Amino acid sequence: MPENTIEFRARYAETDQMGVVYHTNYLVWCEMGRTELMRQLGATYAEMERQGVFLAVSRAQIRFRNAARYDDPIRVRTRLTRVRSRGVTFHYVVERAEGRAVLAEAETDLVCVGPGGSPRKLPALLEALLGRALGQQIA
Amino acid sequence: MPENTIEFRARYAETDQMGVVYHTNYLVWCEMGRTELMRQLGATYAEMERQGVFLAVSRAQIRFRNAARYDDPIRVRTRLTRVRSRGVTFHYVVERAEGRAVLAEAETDLVCVGPGGSPRKLPALLEALLGRALGQQIA
Amino acid sequence: MPENTIEFRARYAETDQMGVVYHTNYLVWCEMGRTELMRQLGATYAEMERQGVFLAVSRAQIRFRNAARYDDPIRVRTRLTRVRSRGVTFHYVVERAEGRAVLAEAETDLVCVGPGGSPRKLPALLEALLGRALGQQIA
Amino acid sequence: MPENTIEFRARYAETDQMGVVYHTNYLVWCEMGRTELMRQLGATYAEMERQGVFLAVSRAQIRFRNAARYDDPIRVRTRLTRVRSRGVTFHYVVERAEGRAVLAEAETDLVCVGPGGSPRKLPALLEALLGRALGQQIA
Repeated sequence: MPENTIEFRARYAETDQMGVVYHTNYLVWCEMGRTELMRQLGATYAEMERQGVFLAVSRAQIRFRNAARYDDPIRVRTRLTRVRSRGVTFHYVVERAEGRAVLAEAETDLVCVGPGGSPRKLPALLEALLGRALGQQIA
Repeated sequence: MPENTIEFRARYAETDQMGVVYHTNYLVWCEMGRTELMRQLGATYAEMERQGVFLAVSRAQIRFRNAARYDDPIRVRTRLTRVRSRGVTFHYVVERAEGRAVLAEAETDLVCVGPGGSPRKLPALLEALLGRALGQQIA
Repeated sequence: MPENTIEFRARYAETDQMGVVYHTNYLVWCEMGRTELMRQLGATYAEMERQGVFLAVSRAQIRFRNAARYDDPIRVRTRLTRVRSRGVTFHYVVERAEGRAVLAEAETDLVCVGPGGSPRKLPALLEALLGRALGQQIA
Repeated sequence: MPENTIEFRARYAETDQMGVVYHTNYLVWCEMGRTELMRQLGATYAEMERQGVFLAVSRAQIRFRNAARYDDPIRVRTRLTRVRSRGVTFHYVVERAEGRAVLAEAETDLVCVGPGGSPRKLPALLEALLGRALGQQIA
């Protein structure tokens, strides 16, 4: 299953007054992970958008296990888990890079939309590319 | 079931280059909703924190139905749906305030933690207050 | 001099681990202020963008006097202070709404750009509208 | 003069509907730059805070020259330009890492505060460390 790993440090701007990273920022990190996984698979997302193909998040779920703190080295492991004719699903594990404590696990569904926001099918080449990476028959 | 409604406009800072509100900001709006619902129930969250009682999000899930755009009047309807000895659950409907199109539905679990981040029980008074609001026996 | 006042509460998401509002969020609040001042002057910014007229921040400066905290009622007083053929300048005072302590003072220059980001003149009607509001001769 | 360089890619979350990075995010990038410069000088900021020494931004100014776009490789060059008994000043150049177009130039003053937010002097060791790095007599 295609997987990608990114590492970076938690920013001060990402903390809140509880002294830990504010919870929605983990989903921003997930987006960074799928950007890099797409690039690795040959489907650079910035390039896709220039061609009028957008992937909009239609569902997100996330469980928080441990708190990330400012300046912690963070690792996000992203897997493409499903390719459909109209969208894709990614799964994420967010870890502290030192010690590998799991901080959060998340999953997002993305649907393909055109420039105006209306749903469309994944372009055939993209669907084939991702489907092949996933090693699955596309439904 | 205790419910609260807030209204405000989507900020420019909340948009992304897809021309709509970036998806994680809906969860920030949910947090604004539960702040106001807690206040309405008599448990001002800022005051709780000053007394060393914190509520940390342990799970979030959200489905996106329609896109919010810059300057849209937004309404968030927040309901307290469950009170446990160690946490609470809220449910949210995010709507466009004009026309009432549903933009997103979300649910978050929050767990009670102390100043250092370790799990603790809800203070008895708070549990009673929220439980009474919910009109349920607390498990 | 045209002036507008908005009020709202500081969000939890806007705090950082110093226990106060993270500094860049004050500039987001300034943007909310100028959105409302423009609307009050009859130049709704969302509408301007739909017509291909964008205002991009070219310079910002801000002095921080006192810290805003979570849930503080915040007031932003925005004034249009200058209109040029290619841009406008706004001045902001951010206050705690209760007690009126000044939290920050800021100034931003904005330049007019077209859909592709290239500089352009303010549309004549907009320049006239803002110039009249300012009660000044336009250079 | 002590200088540090960091590189990273602009995040999707950092864009706005103008199709470019929202202006306040450049100041977040500046904060990332000074975090790394402090670390390089031997004064890890996370460690300083654990010892009760905080640096709060008291003034920021920034000029925007060119727009950063999603996925652009960004470089921030941070210099420590002044050390006073009660604070420090940093200067930043934000560039596109490919081609080196200058995107923004910024300067921030930071003042030293204690855990409660009240002004205090820089600890003598920190002032000596930064002053030596700067190669200047401290006023």
